[in-house]
Amino acid sequence: MTPTKVAILMGSDSDLPIMKEVAETLKAFDVPFYMTVLSAHRTPEATFEFAKTARNKGYGAIIAGAGGAAHLAGVLAGITTLPVIGVPIKSKSLSGVDSLYSTVQMPPGVPVATVAIDGAQNAALLAVQILATADNKLVQKLTDYKKTLKEKVVKKARKVESYTRCL
Amino acid sequence: MTPTKVAILMGSDSDLPIMKEVAETLKAFDVPFYMTVLSAHRTPEATFEFAKTARNKGYGAIIAGAGGAAHLAGVLAGITTLPVIGVPIKSKSLSGVDSLYSTVQMPPGVPVATVAIDGAQNAALLAVQILATADNKLVQKLTDYKKTLKEKVVKKARKVESYTRCL
Amino acid sequence: MTPTKVAILMGSDSDLPIMKEVAETLKAFDVPFYMTVLSAHRTPEATFEFAKTARNKGYGAIIAGAGGAAHLAGVLAGITTLPVIGVPIKSKSLSGVDSLYSTVQMPPGVPVATVAIDGAQNAALLAVQILATADNKLVQKLTDYKKTLKEKVVKKARKVESYTRCL
Amino acid sequence: MTPTKVAILMGSDSDLPIMKEVAETLKAFDVPFYMTVLSAHRTPEATFEFAKTARNKGYGAIIAGAGGAAHLAGVLAGITTLPVIGVPIKSKSLSGVDSLYSTVQMPPGVPVATVAIDGAQNAALLAVQILATADNKLVQKLTDYKKTLKEKVVKKARKVESYTRCL
Amino acid sequence: MTPTKVAILMGSDSDLPIMKEVAETLKAFDVPFYMTVLSAHRTPEATFEFAKTARNKGYGAIIAGAGGAAHLAGVLAGITTLPVIGVPIKSKSLSGVDSLYSTVQMPPGVPVATVAIDGAQNAALLAVQILATADNKLVQKLTDYKKTLKEKVVKKARKVESYTRCL
Amino acid sequence: MTPTKVAILMGSDSDLPIMKEVAETLKAFDVPFYMTVLSAHRTPEATFEFAKTARNKGYGAIIAGAGGAAHLAGVLAGITTLPVIGVPIKSKSLSGVDSLYSTVQMPPGVPVATVAIDGAQNAALLAVQILATADNKLVQKLTDYKKTLKEKVVKKARKVESYTRCL
Amino acid sequence: MTPTKVAILMGSDSDLPIMKEVAETLKAFDVPFYMTVLSAHRTPEATFEFAKTARNKGYGAIIAGAGGAAHLAGVLAGITTLPVIGVPIKSKSLSGVDSLYSTVQMPPGVPVATVAIDGAQNAALLAVQILATADNKLVQKLTDYKKTLKEKVVKKARKVESYTRCL
Amino acid sequence: MTPTKVAILMGSDSDLPIMKEVAETLKAFDVPFYMTVLSAHRTPEATFEFAKTARNKGYGAIIAGAGGAAHLAGVLAGITTLPVIGVPIKSKSLSGVDSLYSTVQMPPGVPVATVAIDGAQNAALLAVQILATADNKLVQKLTDYKKTLKEKVVKKARKVESYTRCL
Repeated sequence: MTPTKVAILMGSDSDLPIMKEVAETLKAFDVPFYMTVLSAHRTPEATFEFAKTARNKGYGAIIAGAGGAAHLAGVLAGITTLPVIGVPIKSKSLSGVDSLYSTVQMPPGVPVATVAIDGAQNAALLAVQILATADNKLVQKLTDYKKTLKEKVVKKARKVESYTRCL
Repeated sequence: MTPTKVAILMGSDSDLPIMKEVAETLKAFDVPFYMTVLSAHRTPEATFEFAKTARNKGYGAIIAGAGGAAHLAGVLAGITTLPVIGVPIKSKSLSGVDSLYSTVQMPPGVPVATVAIDGAQNAALLAVQILATADNKLVQKLTDYKKTLKEKVVKKARKVESYTRCL
Repeated sequence: MTPTKVAILMGSDSDLPIMKEVAETLKAFDVPFYMTVLSAHRTPEATFEFAKTARNKGYGAIIAGAGGAAHLAGVLAGITTLPVIGVPIKSKSLSGVDSLYSTVQMPPGVPVATVAIDGAQNAALLAVQILATADNKLVQKLTDYKKTLKEKVVKKARKVESYTRCL
Repeated sequence: MTPTKVAILMGSDSDLPIMKEVAETLKAFDVPFYMTVLSAHRTPEATFEFAKTARNKGYGAIIAGAGGAAHLAGVLAGITTLPVIGVPIKSKSLSGVDSLYSTVQMPPGVPVATVAIDGAQNAALLAVQILATADNKLVQKLTDYKKTLKEKVVKKARKVESYTRCL
Repeated sequence: MTPTKVAILMGSDSDLPIMKEVAETLKAFDVPFYMTVLSAHRTPEATFEFAKTARNKGYGAIIAGAGGAAHLAGVLAGITTLPVIGVPIKSKSLSGVDSLYSTVQMPPGVPVATVAIDGAQNAALLAVQILATADNKLVQKLTDYKKTLKEKVVKKARKVESYTRCL
Repeated sequence: MTPTKVAILMGSDSDLPIMKEVAETLKAFDVPFYMTVLSAHRTPEATFEFAKTARNKGYGAIIAGAGGAAHLAGVLAGITTLPVIGVPIKSKSLSGVDSLYSTVQMPPGVPVATVAIDGAQNAALLAVQILATADNKLVQKLTDYKKTLKEKVVKKARKVESYTRCL
Repeated sequence: MTPTKVAILMGSDSDLPIMKEVAETLKAFDVPFYMTVLSAHRTPEATFEFAKTARNKGYGAIIAGAGGAAHLAGVLAGITTLPVIGVPIKSKSLSGVDSLYSTVQMPPGVPVATVAIDGAQNAALLAVQILATADNKLVQKLTDYKKTLKEKVVKKARKVESYTRCL
Repeated sequence: MTPTKVAILMGSDSDLPIMKEVAETLKAFDVPFYMTVLSAHRTPEATFEFAKTARNKGYGAIIAGAGGAAHLAGVLAGITTLPVIGVPIKSKSLSGVDSLYSTVQMPPGVPVATVAIDGAQNAALLAVQILATADNKLVQKLTDYKKTLKEKVVKKARKVESYTRCL
């Protein structure tokens, strides 16, 4: 079975302002997703259950955002064989260094594909790149997206250059 | 039921050179313990099972040592209502700052009592202090232990003072 | 004598906005407490005296919050044999990393059970878990509390899922 | 075209002692790979060329290891639409924090799937998980691998438990 | 050919509020410059092309500002033999430590002259100092500038001294 | 000649909001002082001259506040044999860690007595303690000051205790 | 009474290899000292007693070295009005950053004059500078010492210059 | 006058094992240099004098290496209008983070071109790039050097590729 969906999980609804970028980006690529709150610490059974059954439900990647002692991505990666993408959420006192370290420093055997602190959009793009392994239409969309990125830079370049003329 | 035992868990047997200090210290206080390897990432079911049943088996505290993205203590604390004591193990590249942050920065509702990096002996003492809540003999032993600490400092003071005379 | 009370100490009244969460949480568990200001640096005698007599006054745990070069918890732990729980308070320039290091990195023999930076609520829960060693009613309350945590996550999950439908 | 190969790139041959674990792990999964040295700073044209043509040559993922100001993974990710996995190599003075930050903190639009400092084995596993999106035999192998991880922990547990008996 | 111009490049137009100080400072020294947006990750070909041809176009130094995983200066330095000056831009979660490390920690053979986080003005001064190698009028202007710095301090000293009298 | 005055130097008038606390505290102790702006980088000759002649002018201690690459205190300490007290000023991007490191990590032979980041008041107290070496009236004032500190804590304790009653 | 002695205190005899430099340096200046072990955590009463009586015993400065959660200097400074000089001792896992932060980040009202990590020699020099406030012979010795420093650099300069000739 | 020489300064002869790479690299480019020890803290007058006269003596750039509270480069840059290149030397306890921060975080108006921790070779290359502003033969040599870098990578690539065949 070729996977077609992405799961977007977050440790708390306070992560939504960041994690909704994942949903928006996947939507722009027409990739179906399911987004919910699951906590490694508060709903361990549900987290366990989700990870255990995710591949059979058609998911191709799991994106997990959490802050502080961010265990969600690592716990999921311990259970599923799907690629798990971790989004370290910026934390109040340590600015996300704690989230980053507890997401990325996984022991051998249990990888978490970690993106930047609050890097939700890149988590979505990574999921699209993964699904594109078995979906050539997504490859084309990624190529188009890269072109858009370039065009935006060109526009910004024009803006900055015209600023120079006003100095 | 008053708890009488302590569980000593570690993420890998490579943590034993540090975690065995827990066992040695508990032995010195005549506190029974069970020590084994359990991994939040590699044996999630066993970890889950252990935490679920620990209180009923007579444990009064769980001590968990792990390094890097150290999720063991946090995952246990998410399941049991027993006090969980976390020992952040010094890691190869980040010297245990990653272990410390992923152990101590727990979200509200799920505490992990964290000791110093590689602070295994103090984890044991904390467990003894906790069991002492319901065991006056342990209170006495803790008082005696404090006296010993003091006496050791006095001996060291004599040693340093005599060094001065040789300058 | 089985301890029944918790002491909540803080280095300055500027720590109250954080430390009052300890009081509120203990109140919710019906655990009696005494909360005051004691400074390791400004009122050393009073701090010494408090620690010396705490166990005999019926305290079962001491919670100490302090920021910067946060010595309060460590100094108390040097005197009493009660479990001392340290709350590193977020500091102005170093965001609490200084508070965390000076609370958690205690030398062998003198443990401080450290929670997250500004983790006052977890300090209270840890104290309840400790008192529960000799009080089965508290065990039941902790079990109920864990259920509440779970239910809150389920509600948040519903909220996030319904957000998805609006995308 | 379904990708079947993995590229293993490193900034210098001094990274080989770490990066060879990628090769060994992929070999254990029977995943074909090509491993070479490419430098974002010293062979920019070759790096550019490799990234530009990688998908058409049948690669499904690129693994890039580099230390210090580690730009290799990010530069590749700027060119290709393949998933790029970054391995921050431990550096001499900053222990790999520099490598980690320059690998993981990528700007929106250009993700690098980052693993732990020196986490070469996990980079390989992540690549296998990605190729498994279109290859059910790899899914089975990943499931078997997870079982092996579990069995190793059980063996280590026995070892630690027997150590206890000798105390 | 003696170079007479400076290139000011930035990874995004969001860096303009900082990088415009480079332009203003160069203007004050009557040094011609060209300022635009170029991204190592989003417009790699244009970046490559710019670096390749910069010396022949009369540039004597390239100033590159970027934040986060800041690869722009390093990528340029890999291609051109001109001095490349890197300005690490303060980043949202890591305050520019990531930008600093990914700019300054370059491997042997490929230097980036790094200034302070957000140190745009100093980048301009460094470029002027470099062009002054072949332009004695710039040497004189730098000497005059140093005098101005001194005079400003003397004025500030007067201000602070008069504040004292009001205490 | 017994010194009776304190010099308060700062690298820029932007440090005045912090450094004026030094002046205010010295005033409260009736210790005469001279406060001005001197920059190790912008007015090196004046800085040199000041340090060279300070002891003969009757100064007993020099307090120097600076931020970022904070060289002022160290440069002064290289020239004078007076005690130099360094106040690391909180900086914009690195929160004063840069200021702290460049103030405190002095090489053997050239001490700078460093206080906390933005710790201006303590710098003043340290200067008073130093002058008190030769002035018994200052010893008495320091003893009185310590009493005041204690009384303030007692008042704060009352405030926090009364807060408890309102819970 | 003019103070003439220096107290050298350390938290453990394991600090002696660093702290003996204090003794050796004071000896070179013919300044009498008393060196011993005192622990804020293990011998709190003795620490308290020492600080309380130090000034009356003729001490003019207290030098305290400690590592990890280094509370010794701060606790002493809370009790005495003498200048307290803190030496943060390099620690095993955090390289002395913990020792530095817990020594230097003292709250307003209670200064600790902090020197570099393992900066024992500078602590001694600072104590000499303080005693020199009331002792002109020490001023002369400090001037002589500064000359020696200079001469040593000149010798090293010759050595390095002659190395150049061998290139 | 077109400058033709480079000054290599270091705070102590203990920096020679790193700083001699500057000399060796400049020699390979046939750029004349003068290398000696100068200390901002121990020989302030000589440092001052050197900086004051450097341009008139024909120097085109000053390279300064120092560790810990590394003030040498900054102090020189405060006096001369020549480009000053700072080499932060790895320090014993803080691994050079202190050296890096005190070298790179210079205030506006006084730039130090900072290279990587222990990045002596790159400091030399930067100096060559600066002198090349007025010397086309050096431009050619830099182009040749870049070719050599490329060829070395190609050789390393062959080595790594042949390693693969042995797996």
